[in-house]
Amino acid sequence: MHSVGICGSDVHYWQHGRIGDFIVEKPMVLGHEASGTVVKVGSLVKHLKPGDRVAIEPGALREMDEFCKIGRYNLSPSIFFCATPPDDGNLCRFYKHNADFCYKLPDNVTFEEGALIEPLSVGIHACRRAGITLGNKVFVCGAGPIGLVTVIVAKAMGAAQVLVTDLSTSRLSKAKEVGADNVLQISKESPKEIASKVEGLLGCKPEVTIECTGAEPAIQSGIYATRSGGTLVLVGLGPEMTTVPLVHAAIREVDIKGVFRYCNTWPMAISMLASKSVNVKPLVTHRFPLEKALEAFETARKGLGLKVMLKCDPKDQNP
Amino acid sequence: MHSVGICGSDVHYWQHGRIGDFIVEKPMVLGHEASGTVVKVGSLVKHLKPGDRVAIEPGALREMDEFCKIGRYNLSPSIFFCATPPDDGNLCRFYKHNADFCYKLPDNVTFEEGALIEPLSVGIHACRRAGITLGNKVFVCGAGPIGLVTVIVAKAMGAAQVLVTDLSTSRLSKAKEVGADNVLQISKESPKEIASKVEGLLGCKPEVTIECTGAEPAIQSGIYATRSGGTLVLVGLGPEMTTVPLVHAAIREVDIKGVFRYCNTWPMAISMLASKSVNVKPLVTHRFPLEKALEAFETARKGLGLKVMLKCDPKDQNP
Amino acid sequence: MHSVGICGSDVHYWQHGRIGDFIVEKPMVLGHEASGTVVKVGSLVKHLKPGDRVAIEPGALREMDEFCKIGRYNLSPSIFFCATPPDDGNLCRFYKHNADFCYKLPDNVTFEEGALIEPLSVGIHACRRAGITLGNKVFVCGAGPIGLVTVIVAKAMGAAQVLVTDLSTSRLSKAKEVGADNVLQISKESPKEIASKVEGLLGCKPEVTIECTGAEPAIQSGIYATRSGGTLVLVGLGPEMTTVPLVHAAIREVDIKGVFRYCNTWPMAISMLASKSVNVKPLVTHRFPLEKALEAFETARKGLGLKVMLKCDPKDQNP
Amino acid sequence: MHSVGICGSDVHYWQHGRIGDFIVEKPMVLGHEASGTVVKVGSLVKHLKPGDRVAIEPGALREMDEFCKIGRYNLSPSIFFCATPPDDGNLCRFYKHNADFCYKLPDNVTFEEGALIEPLSVGIHACRRAGITLGNKVFVCGAGPIGLVTVIVAKAMGAAQVLVTDLSTSRLSKAKEVGADNVLQISKESPKEIASKVEGLLGCKPEVTIECTGAEPAIQSGIYATRSGGTLVLVGLGPEMTTVPLVHAAIREVDIKGVFRYCNTWPMAISMLASKSVNVKPLVTHRFPLEKALEAFETARKGLGLKVMLKCDPKDQNP
Repeated sequence: MHSVGICGSDVHYWQHGRIGDFIVEKPMVLGHEASGTVVKVGSLVKHLKPGDRVAIEPGALREMDEFCKIGRYNLSPSIFFCATPPDDGNLCRFYKHNADFCYKLPDNVTFEEGALIEPLSVGIHACRRAGITLGNKVFVCGAGPIGLVTVIVAKAMGAAQVLVTDLSTSRLSKAKEVGADNVLQISKESPKEIASKVEGLLGCKPEVTIECTGAEPAIQSGIYATRSGGTLVLVGLGPEMTTVPLVHAAIREVDIKGVFRYCNTWPMAISMLASKSVNVKPLVTHRFPLEKALEAFETARKGLGLKVMLKCDPKDQNP
Repeated sequence: MHSVGICGSDVHYWQHGRIGDFIVEKPMVLGHEASGTVVKVGSLVKHLKPGDRVAIEPGALREMDEFCKIGRYNLSPSIFFCATPPDDGNLCRFYKHNADFCYKLPDNVTFEEGALIEPLSVGIHACRRAGITLGNKVFVCGAGPIGLVTVIVAKAMGAAQVLVTDLSTSRLSKAKEVGADNVLQISKESPKEIASKVEGLLGCKPEVTIECTGAEPAIQSGIYATRSGGTLVLVGLGPEMTTVPLVHAAIREVDIKGVFRYCNTWPMAISMLASKSVNVKPLVTHRFPLEKALEAFETARKGLGLKVMLKCDPKDQNP
Repeated sequence: MHSVGICGSDVHYWQHGRIGDFIVEKPMVLGHEASGTVVKVGSLVKHLKPGDRVAIEPGALREMDEFCKIGRYNLSPSIFFCATPPDDGNLCRFYKHNADFCYKLPDNVTFEEGALIEPLSVGIHACRRAGITLGNKVFVCGAGPIGLVTVIVAKAMGAAQVLVTDLSTSRLSKAKEVGADNVLQISKESPKEIASKVEGLLGCKPEVTIECTGAEPAIQSGIYATRSGGTLVLVGLGPEMTTVPLVHAAIREVDIKGVFRYCNTWPMAISMLASKSVNVKPLVTHRFPLEKALEAFETARKGLGLKVMLKCDPKDQNP
Repeated sequence: MHSVGICGSDVHYWQHGRIGDFIVEKPMVLGHEASGTVVKVGSLVKHLKPGDRVAIEPGALREMDEFCKIGRYNLSPSIFFCATPPDDGNLCRFYKHNADFCYKLPDNVTFEEGALIEPLSVGIHACRRAGITLGNKVFVCGAGPIGLVTVIVAKAMGAAQVLVTDLSTSRLSKAKEVGADNVLQISKESPKEIASKVEGLLGCKPEVTIECTGAEPAIQSGIYATRSGGTLVLVGLGPEMTTVPLVHAAIREVDIKGVFRYCNTWPMAISMLASKSVNVKPLVTHRFPLEKALEAFETARKGLGLKVMLKCDPKDQNP
C-alpha cells in the first residue's frame, strides 16, 4: 500500500465502535481510501501485473446477485467493504483485494489522487443521481470534504453555477478555492429563509440540491430551495426519523434521492484525473507516515484541515 | 357537455371553500372530469370540428414557459385548471376550452370513459413516474378511486403482481375486481409490520410503492416496504410537515417522487380505451341528471359508491 | 435436463457449421432454450438446492468486466454462451451451469414455459430497448418466433395497438392468435408503400418499430414508418452492409437501436409467467423425446410449426 | 437587430435556392443566428421590455401539438423557422419574433455570444442526445463550425478526452484551440483503419461518436469506432440513401441517433456563457457591417475563416 486517506467513518469507528447497525466486534483494520502497487496477482487475472500502480475500490462483490446484474452493485447486501465491520480495511503495508476492483493508474495520476478517487466517487455518484447537466444551477449544503468533492464534480459535469452553504467561513473559502461560484454563510436563518437567499443569489431556484450535512433543517431548506421538477440528493445521513415538508416536494415534483456509497465511478474518475479535468490535490492538507497513524487520526478527529493522508510505503512518501 | 364526474376535490371546495392555498373567493363552477360534443371551434382550430365528441384535459397552458418547453407543462405556475379557484370548471351545459386540450374520442369510446380519463390520468402519471415495467411487484396504499386507477394502470403497464392495502373490506373487494392480485386489510399494524406483511405476500419487496392516502404511517410503511433501488411515489397529500424514516430510504436508494396532476396522458389513455386494453367502466357507480346535482354531490360526500357521474345533456343520458 | 427448445441458430449451426464469425471447429452440443431440475449444487450456492426446478439463462459471465458492472452483461466479450462455438449447449440429459444464471421456477410455471423464457427474453430485451410504454402503437416486421414473442411482450408492456407484417398468411394468423391487433400481408410493395399502409391501418405512425427479419427492404420500411422522435429496434440480422435512408431517420430523430441477446430478463419473465400475465404456451407446436432429436431438427429445419421442444427426461415428457 | 452570424445553410439557399425539400420560391430574408435589442413588446409579454438585450431562438412554435407537449418541440411539423422557406430570417435592421423564443441576455454576455448560441445549440443538442457524461471519450468527425461547437460542449459536459478528425490541418489546429485533446488528420484510410487509429489514440474505443460531416465513409468509421453499448450521433447530413455496416452497430448495441436542430438549449447556453464556463468567442473570425452583406456572404462562401458576423446596428458595431 502507498497512500490511504482517513475518512470521517474511520474516525467514528475508532472513537465509537459503531455506525448505525455496523458494530465493531473484534479488532478491525481501518482505511478504505487507498492506492498501492501490485505485488502479486492470481492466475486468472489478466488486466494487472506486479508493478502496476492501482487505485482500490473498497466495495467488492461477493456474489452476482440481482443488484449486480442491473449495474447497481453498491446495493448488493452481501458486498465486501473495506473497514465496514466485520470486513478489514486497507490501512496497512500489504493488502489483498479482489482484482476486479483494482484499477490501474496511468503514469500521470499520483498515488494520492488514486486514493482520493474514493471520496471523489461519493461526489460523482451524488451528482450522477442528481442528473446534473449543462448549465444547471446547483445548491450544495455543507462544505466538508464531501461537499467539496461534490462542488468539483458538479462543475466538471457542466453546472453553470454552484452555490455552497456552511456555518464556517474557512470551509466556505475552501469551497471557493475548489470551484464554487457562490458561497453563503448561514447562522440562524430558518429553512425557508435559506431557500429564499439561495434563490436570490442564483437568480432562480436551483435545479439540483445536494445535501451533505444530514441536518434536519438543511434537508428542509433543500426541499424549499429546489426548483419544481428538480432533484434533491441526500448524501449526509441524519437521524432515524426526520420531519420534512414532504408534501411541498411532492406537489412540485421535486424528487428526493439518496445515495449509498457509489458504483461505476473508478474508471471515469481515472479518466478525469488523467486528462486533468478535475483537480483534487488541494484536498490533501496533512500527511503522516504509517508509524504516526495515531497522530494522523488525532488530527482528523480534531477537524484540522481537510484530508489527512497516511503514507504506508516506507520507501516512498511522495504524493 | 355530456358527462362530468365528481372528484373528491369538487366535494372539498363545496364543503370547505378551500384546498391549501387555493381559496374560493367568488362563485365558482365545479367539475373537471369531463367530456362533451364540440359545437363551435375557433378559426385556427384544425383538429376538431362541430359534432366531434371530445374528452377535456382540464389543465390548459396560458403561456409557453420553461416547464412547457421541456414537456412538464403540469408544473407551469400560470396554467389554467378547471375548478381550481379562481378558474371555473366545466360542470355545466356549455363550456369553452382551449382546443389544444380537447381530444377527439373514437366512436368506440363512450362519453363516460372520456370523462374518466381524468382520474385515469392520475394513475398513468403516477405509474409512469414510478417507472413501472414488465414483471414488477407493486404495492398500492389505499383503495379509493385513485388507488383503483393506479391498480388498473400498473397492470396495463406490465406489473406482474399488484398488492393493495386499505382499512375497508369493501374497497379491497373493488380493488380485486379491477385487477389487484393481492389485497391486505390493515388495522393496527405498525408501518414496519405492514412492510413485512407486504413482503411476505409478494414473496419479495416491491420495486414500486404508490402511496394514495397521504397518511403519515402509510408513507412510512411505503419507505420500509420498497425494495432497495426502487421508487416510492406519493400521490396522496398529507400534512404540511411529515415525519418519515428518510435515512432508511436514502441509504437504500429508494427514490421518493411526488406527482402534481399529470401531463401527456390523454392521447395514451384514449389509445388504451379504444383498444380495450383497460376497463374503467366498473368505476362508475352512480349517475344523476345535471338537475339533480345536489343529490349527486351528497352521494359523493357520503362516500357511497366510487364515481358519481353527472349527465349534462338532457337529450342523451347514456354512458 | 427436462425441456430444450430448438432455435433457428441451432439449425443453422447444424446445417452450416457457422454463423458469421462463430465457427464450429469441433463437435459441439446444441441447445440453449432450456429448463431442468437441480441435481447438485456447489458449496457456495445458497439460492438453489437439489430438486429445484430451474430455467437456465444460457449466457453466463466469466469475468466482472466494465459491461457487467454497468448492468449490460450481454455485451461482455468473454461471456460463456450455450451452443455458441466453442461453448457447448445444454441439449442433453445432464448439464452443469453457473448457478447465478439458473433461476428457480415457481410451481405454477411449467418446464416448457421455463425453456421458452429464452426466446421470450429476446422480445423483452427488444421491447425494453424500444422503450415501449402505455398506449404505444407498435409495428413489428416479421411473424416468425421472434416476431411473435415481441407481439406478446409489447402487449404486456401496455402497447395499445400492435401491427405485424409478414409474407405468410399462416404466420399472420398465429400473430393474431398471440395478440396482434392488426396484421398486414405484404408482397411486392415498396418500403415507402408499406410504411404508408402501416400508418393507414394504425391511424398514425407507430412510435416504435421492431424489425425481426433482417431484410434490407424491411429495415427501410421501418425507418419510413416510425414516427418522428420514435425508435426502430433491429432484431433481425441482415447482411454486413445495408443501404438505408439514414438521413430520413436522422432528421426526424428516429433512433436506431440493435439488440444483442438480452440481459436481466429471466426474473421478470418468471414473474410474468407466474402471474399468468403472458401466455407463451401456444408457441410450442411439436414435441419429441431426446432420442428422436434428428427428427425434431428436421421438423425445425422444414419450418413446420413454430417451436419444437425436445424432452430430455425419459421419466417425464410432460410440458 | 445587432449581430447575425452567417450559417452554411444561408449560403446554400443563396447559391442554390433550396436544401432538400425546402425550396425558395419567393424573395426570402436570410439569417437565423441572431441577437438584438427589444424595441417593443406585445401587451401579454411579461418577461421582456424595451431595451432588453436578447438572443433569438429561430424556431418558434405555431401550435401546441403532440411534440411540443412532450418537450421535443423541434419536431413539430408546423414550426416557424427563420430563413427556412417560406419563413423569413432575421438578417435585417428590425425584426418581429415570438417573445417566448426571445431570451434576455445578462449584461456580461455580448451580442455576438448571443448570436452564437444558435450554432452552440446544435452542439448542445447533439451532445445531450449522445448522453455524454463525466469521463467519456468522445470521437468527433469533422472540424468545421459544428464540429468545433461539439468539442466545446463535450468538454463542458465532462468528457475526459475528445478526439477530432478532419482532412484539413488548419481546421484541426482550430479544434485543438477550442479544447480538443487529440486530433487526427485523415487522408486515404479506410473506415476500419480510421476506427482503429481512433482507438489507438484514445487508449480505448470512445463511448460516443458525433459525426459532423455527413460523408458515408465517416458514418461507417463512426459505427466501427464506437464502443459496444455506446452512441453514434449523426449531425452531418449525407445522401438520401447510405450504405452502412448496420449489423455491426446492432449486435454491439451501438445506438444511432440523429438530431434535428435543437430544443431547450437557449437557457442553458446563456447560463454557461454568463458563468464563463464555455468560450465561443474564438469562433468569430470576420465582421462586416450590414451594408457589406454581399462581401460577408462571399467570405463565407469561400470558406475563409469560421464564423462571419454581420453587424446590423449602425450605431453599435461592437462584439
